[in-house]
Amino acid sequence: MKKVLTGGLLAMFSVASLADEGMWQPHQLPQISQQLKQAGLALDPNDLTNLTGFPMGAIVSLGGCTASFVSDKGLVATNHHCIYGSVQYNSSEENNLLRDGFLAKNFDQELQATPGSRIYVTEEINEVTEQVNAGLSKDMDGAERYDVMEKNRKALVSECEADDKYRCRVVNFHGGLQYFLFKQLTIRDVRLVHAPAMSVGKYGGDIDNWMWPRHTGDYGFYRAYVGKDGQPADYHEDNVPYEPKHYLKVNKASVADGDYIMVLGYPGRTNRYRVASEVENQFTWTYPNAKVMREDIIDLIKSNSEPDSDARIKYESTLASLANYAKNYGSMISSYQKGDMLARKQKLEADLAAWINADKKRKAQYGDALTGLNKLITKSQENQARDLILGYMRYGALYNSANSLYRWSIEQELDDAERKSGYQDRDKNRFVQGMKTINRRYDQVIDKAIMSKLLADYAKLPESERLASLDKFFAIDKGADEAAIGKQLEQMYAQSKLAEQERRLAWMDKSPSDFENSNDPFIKLAVATYKERLALEQSSEALSGEIQAYRPKYMAALIAYYQDKNLPVYADANSTLRITYGNVKGYSPQDGLWATPFTRLEGIAAKNTGEVPFNASEKQLSLIANKEYGDYARPELGSVPVNYLGTLDITGGNSGSPTLNDKAEFVGLVFDGVYESIIGDWDYDPSLNRSIHVDVRYMLWVMEHIDGATNLIEEMDIVE
Amino acid sequence: MKKVLTGGLLAMFSVASLADEGMWQPHQLPQISQQLKQAGLALDPNDLTNLTGFPMGAIVSLGGCTASFVSDKGLVATNHHCIYGSVQYNSSEENNLLRDGFLAKNFDQELQATPGSRIYVTEEINEVTEQVNAGLSKDMDGAERYDVMEKNRKALVSECEADDKYRCRVVNFHGGLQYFLFKQLTIRDVRLVHAPAMSVGKYGGDIDNWMWPRHTGDYGFYRAYVGKDGQPADYHEDNVPYEPKHYLKVNKASVADGDYIMVLGYPGRTNRYRVASEVENQFTWTYPNAKVMREDIIDLIKSNSEPDSDARIKYESTLASLANYAKNYGSMISSYQKGDMLARKQKLEADLAAWINADKKRKAQYGDALTGLNKLITKSQENQARDLILGYMRYGALYNSANSLYRWSIEQELDDAERKSGYQDRDKNRFVQGMKTINRRYDQVIDKAIMSKLLADYAKLPESERLASLDKFFAIDKGADEAAIGKQLEQMYAQSKLAEQERRLAWMDKSPSDFENSNDPFIKLAVATYKERLALEQSSEALSGEIQAYRPKYMAALIAYYQDKNLPVYADANSTLRITYGNVKGYSPQDGLWATPFTRLEGIAAKNTGEVPFNASEKQLSLIANKEYGDYARPELGSVPVNYLGTLDITGGNSGSPTLNDKAEFVGLVFDGVYESIIGDWDYDPSLNRSIHVDVRYMLWVMEHIDGATNLIEEMDIVE
Repeated sequence: MKKVLTGGLLAMFSVASLADEGMWQPHQLPQISQQLKQAGLALDPNDLTNLTGFPMGAIVSLGGCTASFVSDKGLVATNHHCIYGSVQYNSSEENNLLRDGFLAKNFDQELQATPGSRIYVTEEINEVTEQVNAGLSKDMDGAERYDVMEKNRKALVSECEADDKYRCRVVNFHGGLQYFLFKQLTIRDVRLVHAPAMSVGKYGGDIDNWMWPRHTGDYGFYRAYVGKDGQPADYHEDNVPYEPKHYLKVNKASVADGDYIMVLGYPGRTNRYRVASEVENQFTWTYPNAKVMREDIIDLIKSNSEPDSDARIKYESTLASLANYAKNYGSMISSYQKGDMLARKQKLEADLAAWINADKKRKAQYGDALTGLNKLITKSQENQARDLILGYMRYGALYNSANSLYRWSIEQELDDAERKSGYQDRDKNRFVQGMKTINRRYDQVIDKAIMSKLLADYAKLPESERLASLDKFFAIDKGADEAAIGKQLEQMYAQSKLAEQERRLAWMDKSPSDFENSNDPFIKLAVATYKERLALEQSSEALSGEIQAYRPKYMAALIAYYQDKNLPVYADANSTLRITYGNVKGYSPQDGLWATPFTRLEGIAAKNTGEVPFNASEKQLSLIANKEYGDYARPELGSVPVNYLGTLDITGGNSGSPTLNDKAEFVGLVFDGVYESIIGDWDYDPSLNRSIHVDVRYMLWVMEHIDGATNLIEEMDIVE
Repeated sequence: MKKVLTGGLLAMFSVASLADEGMWQPHQLPQISQQLKQAGLALDPNDLTNLTGFPMGAIVSLGGCTASFVSDKGLVATNHHCIYGSVQYNSSEENNLLRDGFLAKNFDQELQATPGSRIYVTEEINEVTEQVNAGLSKDMDGAERYDVMEKNRKALVSECEADDKYRCRVVNFHGGLQYFLFKQLTIRDVRLVHAPAMSVGKYGGDIDNWMWPRHTGDYGFYRAYVGKDGQPADYHEDNVPYEPKHYLKVNKASVADGDYIMVLGYPGRTNRYRVASEVENQFTWTYPNAKVMREDIIDLIKSNSEPDSDARIKYESTLASLANYAKNYGSMISSYQKGDMLARKQKLEADLAAWINADKKRKAQYGDALTGLNKLITKSQENQARDLILGYMRYGALYNSANSLYRWSIEQELDDAERKSGYQDRDKNRFVQGMKTINRRYDQVIDKAIMSKLLADYAKLPESERLASLDKFFAIDKGADEAAIGKQLEQMYAQSKLAEQERRLAWMDKSPSDFENSNDPFIKLAVATYKERLALEQSSEALSGEIQAYRPKYMAALIAYYQDKNLPVYADANSTLRITYGNVKGYSPQDGLWATPFTRLEGIAAKNTGEVPFNASEKQLSLIANKEYGDYARPELGSVPVNYLGTLDITGGNSGSPTLNDKAEFVGLVFDGVYESIIGDWDYDPSLNRSIHVDVRYMLWVMEHIDGATNLIEEMDIVE
């Protein structure tokens, strides 16, 4: 039997000392060069710090997903689920690319990606902590702090984006201890090159999502195009493939059990440094309640639409997302209950306090950090039941768009630099897209049912938590019950024109007073409640400004504490470029079971039912039955590897990241984590945290033997 | 990753050549001595052939289960599920032994096992093929053959049982190629010594049944008692513990991954030598239809009884058994569909035919065996839809007991030796028990619903398949539909007195004419249909007599064919003493997963929900949490092993068999097989067939640290 280290044993080590944990900023790699070499990296860690060198220069962001250049002609490899929207966009009933897959045999056949698709190449990262904090003073209250910093950030972004080839972001690290400005070249002409059939790219579908054993060919290809001058340009048929300075070689040998691997990418968000009180509230209040909320909304959507009806089809992606996170929260709650994260957090805080109090200077510097932070956290949780309900009201499409449109009109009155983020000129394109997508995802009966449920929940809150304007609008202050609210909603949906796309878009050009004079009931609701909602937003910002005075201090203390122990500290994920490294390795999901690190082609055949999502093609099944492995079998497996497990520390946003071997050659794509890793956003457990990768051998096998994508195989630089 | 041999690869080997496959008769062991030694047996295989020597003399049958002597005072170890009835029998609401467990701290505290409990010690096995076939001639038809052989068998049994200490059976091997007479000393005073709490002995319950990972402490102890003269006797307080000639030493070191293990026991029934046409029919007709039938009856029981109602409680064991086999059949159908058993059978038959036809003498001897057999098999399947329905009518308790009682009265008119098996004096005790248990398992509403469904199914059969007498009784010949049949059943159940135990038992002493004059509607039904049911039975016996002319010939051909390849052949299981050997070994239940061969205490805590069947005691959970392993941890596991996997070839009836190490020391009890082994009754796949054993270390740990059964630990001969 393989020996499995238990969570209990490992919990004795401090978080930051663990080999495979950590999403490291490129500039930190020299700090962990010994660990990188020990794990098996063959390159000099210093070479990985250069953003415009190899291999960092080959890593790009799609905004939400990661991707990488794999040829000198701008060919971009990423996950199938990252290009899904573009495949869907180009699909029709007659030409179902999503189901059947797509291959451009030459550049001319390549298709425009879904409008708004972008490829971001990070070119510069500069620390701007001083600039962000400029003008802050100790006597400022939270709201003032917030405003000063917000203004500074917007100014930095605006200056950086003076050249419109770039998109810039100021990003908070360590809870505001540091800020960095990211400058990304933005490629606007993105084309779809190749996607395998859904029965490869989404084999196992939602059933296998977060699960092992896994057999998903979650890969696809874009190409970056630029103007003839080599500069980013809008789509034009005369545009030419972008020639990146660096691209990844593809190593068709792939990897074996125990091999070094690393993932370079843009992980979205983690919460590894949250304090005990936040953890406890999140796992005993927020996740359990949000899970119930999601399940209730799922039930409402299902009970208000027949399977396969137009209405149901419109809500499929909403349902998938609701269910996805309900499952996600369920896993986290269960992992939390089985584990001892809270006890470890509490111990860490006690140890940290002891360390701080052991030294006068430290005590003066950090002494009030945790208590100050905890007081503000308690405050932020005071109205969380109401905040949860108001938050989920975004699922009411008419309510949500009325609010956004009215806000848009108000912000437009200001100079661009003064406007709220999300309502600036740079946001307009995305705002319009948002107003457009509603139509494909809206059904009046369902929207009304969701709003009715949420307002009924809302009406049950104590009066002190409710909004007077919202109460008045629905006569809740006069005792309106669910039936009365439902009746009023009935009339509102009957009268409102906001379900029409043209009307919504037209509202974008109107003035606040147009809104204030409107008779559309959802516009009236938005106007009536605006001031109170704005006040809530401002008090939340003020609180966040107050927290900004404590959290960086707490993080500084924690970092100093670890530094004292000679342990480097990585920052929580924040959608910026990171490296995580580790090894190919199985794990024990349950006493008596070992998840072996590779799945094989035969597992596809064994899972196959012929029904979506286990509907491999006849061709694929016959190749498997006849053991036609081509060049891609690995002898120790006796077959072609399909997916493999790694110890890498990843999260959402890493999707599409290339998996690199010890020489930074492409050996696959990371696309998921196992069920037991979901809590990893809060707590990395080396015995259970596993990333799931599609093996480059499976990609090449399908491309060569099923899809005939030999043009792409030839285009890539394949080594062994 | 562990390398897993695939079924496909191994299918190339012939069945009989596989190391771990085979349920061997003791006298065959010298034929496979090389394989036994290669697997790791440290003893001389010749020593295992002696029934009254060590270790065979320590192995006993409980009739349906196996057990073993583990002390010189007649202490008997077996599975918890084999003594379950006796624990239940001694339980009451106030003194719930089943839930809480039971321990006799001395002989006086030992409790009588459930009435009818027996311990059988096999003392002699003699071949009686000639005697069974005596008087057969070629010109006899099937019915004549059947009658001659039946008479011979009964004579042999009767002679053997002249000494009433013994119970004897004539058993068919290789489909009638050989017959052996088994003579078993029958111990009639059986007492309950120790059972762990249900939360140990049935941990995981039906949910984990057939499943891995497993954490069940499926063990318990009986003691054999005899009269002061050392001879078997009915229960009496003056009886004394039986002193067996041999008992097993208990090796508390247990076993490790890869170690040699063997199981000596009484496996019930396998079908490894069925021909292709039988296999195909069984898996494409019989199992699928029987599964639906069982699921229908389960639905009926559930829809006619509230959970926890008296009626439901009465049917719990019926439901468990129905569901158990529905799951069993489901597994077999699924394994059959995934595998290639039929193709291999067909290939074997083609190879066998070629081998037979390659030699004149062989052709003359065996040439017509398979074709002759296949013809008869086809005939036996002709009315299988009807036979299935009539077979399931045994679930109608009043219908079934009326038929049995009427038959009993008819058979009693004959001399004992002339009576049908099951209706002889030697069967009376069991017959009475059967008539008694009905009361605890009968509810009128449910019984009626089942009969109504089965008769409705029956009525839909083509007339040619139906029984005229049954049709007439329910006016089906006059077009009675389900409603009409239901109405008639309504009246029958209202009028019949057969639901009363006293009445049923009273009928055992009545004559056939009493039955023929009865007004009880179920007795009338039994009388009305008796002749036709008897005719069906006789034609089935005649067919079986005809098959007896071919199947032994086919088996003789097959054995000669394997002998030609120097491969020994074991016989299908038939509830006689066998040895199976192999090793401790994990397996791959699915691509990407490896079932590790041991589970550990920590797995119990991880599965625990606090609700039955995952409700370990506080005491146990606290011992686990504190790692109080006593002497029983194994270093390579870092904990106490709970259950382990072996490659042994077992089936129902092996339950309770001791698992022995290379020196024939007790290292656990076999109690189940994994889900993927269920098809093993037809086809042993070395990559998937795994036996599940409770580890002796877990038994001793619970006995010492939870139940304080130190008196038993002291009584046993514990070695290391």
